[in-house]
Amino acid sequence: MRATTIHAPFDIRLSEVPDPKIQLPTDAVVKIVAGCICGSDLWPYRGENAITPPGRRIGHEYVGIVQEVGADVRTVKSGDFVVTPFLASDGTCPNCLAGMTAACLNQVSIGGPDADGGQGEYAKVPYADGTLVATPEVPDDSLVPSLLTLSDVMGTGWHAARSARVKPGDTVVVVGDGAVGLCGVLAAVRMGAERVVALSRHETRQKVATEFGATHIIAERGDEARTAVLDLTAGLGADAVLECVGTAQAMTTAFEVARPGATVGFVGVPHGVEVPIGTMFSRNVGLAGGLAPARAYLPELMADVLSGEINPGLVFDQELPLAEVAEGYRSMHERRAIKTLLRP
Amino acid sequence: MRATTIHAPFDIRLSEVPDPKIQLPTDAVVKIVAGCICGSDLWPYRGENAITPPGRRIGHEYVGIVQEVGADVRTVKSGDFVVTPFLASDGTCPNCLAGMTAACLNQVSIGGPDADGGQGEYAKVPYADGTLVATPEVPDDSLVPSLLTLSDVMGTGWHAARSARVKPGDTVVVVGDGAVGLCGVLAAVRMGAERVVALSRHETRQKVATEFGATHIIAERGDEARTAVLDLTAGLGADAVLECVGTAQAMTTAFEVARPGATVGFVGVPHGVEVPIGTMFSRNVGLAGGLAPARAYLPELMADVLSGEINPGLVFDQELPLAEVAEGYRSMHERRAIKTLLRP
Repeated sequence: MRATTIHAPFDIRLSEVPDPKIQLPTDAVVKIVAGCICGSDLWPYRGENAITPPGRRIGHEYVGIVQEVGADVRTVKSGDFVVTPFLASDGTCPNCLAGMTAACLNQVSIGGPDADGGQGEYAKVPYADGTLVATPEVPDDSLVPSLLTLSDVMGTGWHAARSARVKPGDTVVVVGDGAVGLCGVLAAVRMGAERVVALSRHETRQKVATEFGATHIIAERGDEARTAVLDLTAGLGADAVLECVGTAQAMTTAFEVARPGATVGFVGVPHGVEVPIGTMFSRNVGLAGGLAPARAYLPELMADVLSGEINPGLVFDQELPLAEVAEGYRSMHERRAIKTLLRP
Repeated sequence: MRATTIHAPFDIRLSEVPDPKIQLPTDAVVKIVAGCICGSDLWPYRGENAITPPGRRIGHEYVGIVQEVGADVRTVKSGDFVVTPFLASDGTCPNCLAGMTAACLNQVSIGGPDADGGQGEYAKVPYADGTLVATPEVPDDSLVPSLLTLSDVMGTGWHAARSARVKPGDTVVVVGDGAVGLCGVLAAVRMGAERVVALSRHETRQKVATEFGATHIIAERGDEARTAVLDLTAGLGADAVLECVGTAQAMTTAFEVARPGATVGFVGVPHGVEVPIGTMFSRNVGLAGGLAPARAYLPELMADVLSGEINPGLVFDQELPLAEVAEGYRSMHERRAIKTLLRP
């Protein structure tokens, strides 16, 4: 079978790899219907993360049809359409039972050395019962993009909003206009926020934010962004802030626009971030979030997608055949695409 | 009248100062029944904070009887027994209305240049309606110590527990065995925590923690404390952690003993603390808290004190006449006393 491999910075290939096989009775094999490229896939692509070993598989987001399951698998069966979250989790450890599946004691990274990546034709999934969530029936193809976002970006945007404790009537600021930030806008709207402010200077992203329900777009950055948010909130700041980037500047902006008593929900992997503990203390602004428990959110978000309540698939503005995966990476790297969907 | 003044490190005096007078129609003058010394009063005492100007008044915790009110004061009257929280707040700004009185837009620090300190005979209180909370009737003298804690330490311990989102059935770890940490133990118990672990190596403080309902005492620090908490929690860590010190070591311990998905509630003024953002991300441990909105918590906590539900006054293990205030500072500085109550 064919799957995407990364060999060096900017060297993405579609390669022949061995077909996956059931190895443990808790495994499943999935025929991939759609995969996609994540912003975090661009780190090794750009040489910002090490590529070990060269030639490794890549991609941690996919949906597909179950082909085969191990003898112990109970919750999914051959023929089911499933969403695979970006981390496999056993579903039975105390952290999973507490809803913190991203800290499963037996966690396996999809696309890591122990679980096949999602930018390919097939994948073996560990802990199938704990990890996979099946739709009640095979969904219409038009729903595939939205279901695919539940493997990572929509779950991650949801986690930002949950961590920031968005509640009905809130004014929410979303820092970051990547696919996760846009999903954060959608999450805040779904949670009943009255005003959702997207910080974005890119027209295509502003358009998606607006389609997701953003009520205000602020194109300014830094001090000007802060002033604009304070102007909107009688000088107080936002009730909740979603930090969906992970840079020092994004975190600084997030704290600056938060009102006293607010929480910054952060899901951007921190790069060079220093937390302003003095400001947190004097202004009572909290910080919560991290690696999203996408699996825990899947049932609720899947129901919302299937009912048409949310349509997060709008974050995909490019669809390519798997054979053109290298072009997909290029267009996301050059910011020609927000997010690229790949069809095997 | 007489009031405590600080002139230089270790130079605390009882001095003659002018009698307070109503200056604004929103002021009140209170005859102090009891005041006390706070751990944070020890910073200027030890020379860790500047003393500006030398000879300034000090002390931000007191209870007393209203002597006189300005023309606009509506909620308290002459003869009322009142608790004064450590920050005066107007009660009408958007932050006060949202319960975040510690960020009142017109905030005045008790014991600062604009509001008399509480280690004296009388004090003028700004924003009397927003700031003071009166008991339904003048309470029995035995309740004075507990009511006095509501001006700061009990409200602050409560804030740590609220910020850490303690809920019924939780296992809670409290880092810090000062008066605030001990009140944090009491708060966690009152919120229904099943197991409350106090980190303390001082016998008198361990005893108060146990009286407040701590189910476990851990005398170890650092790695050993972490191991002890993990042993108690099947290797997972605590559901909520209260950081009531403010040092780098205390914050490190707090994060180390928190389970994934927990929140560290912090109320110790941060001194040299670096927030472990990477750990927060990978383990989904949040951080929330800061300067306590003691005024917002006062009605609820006062009801608990008056009903006998809580008895936070046990944190006072020394009572002195105001004339011996300098000895009070010495005994707290030398850790001979947990907290000293002063009677004018």
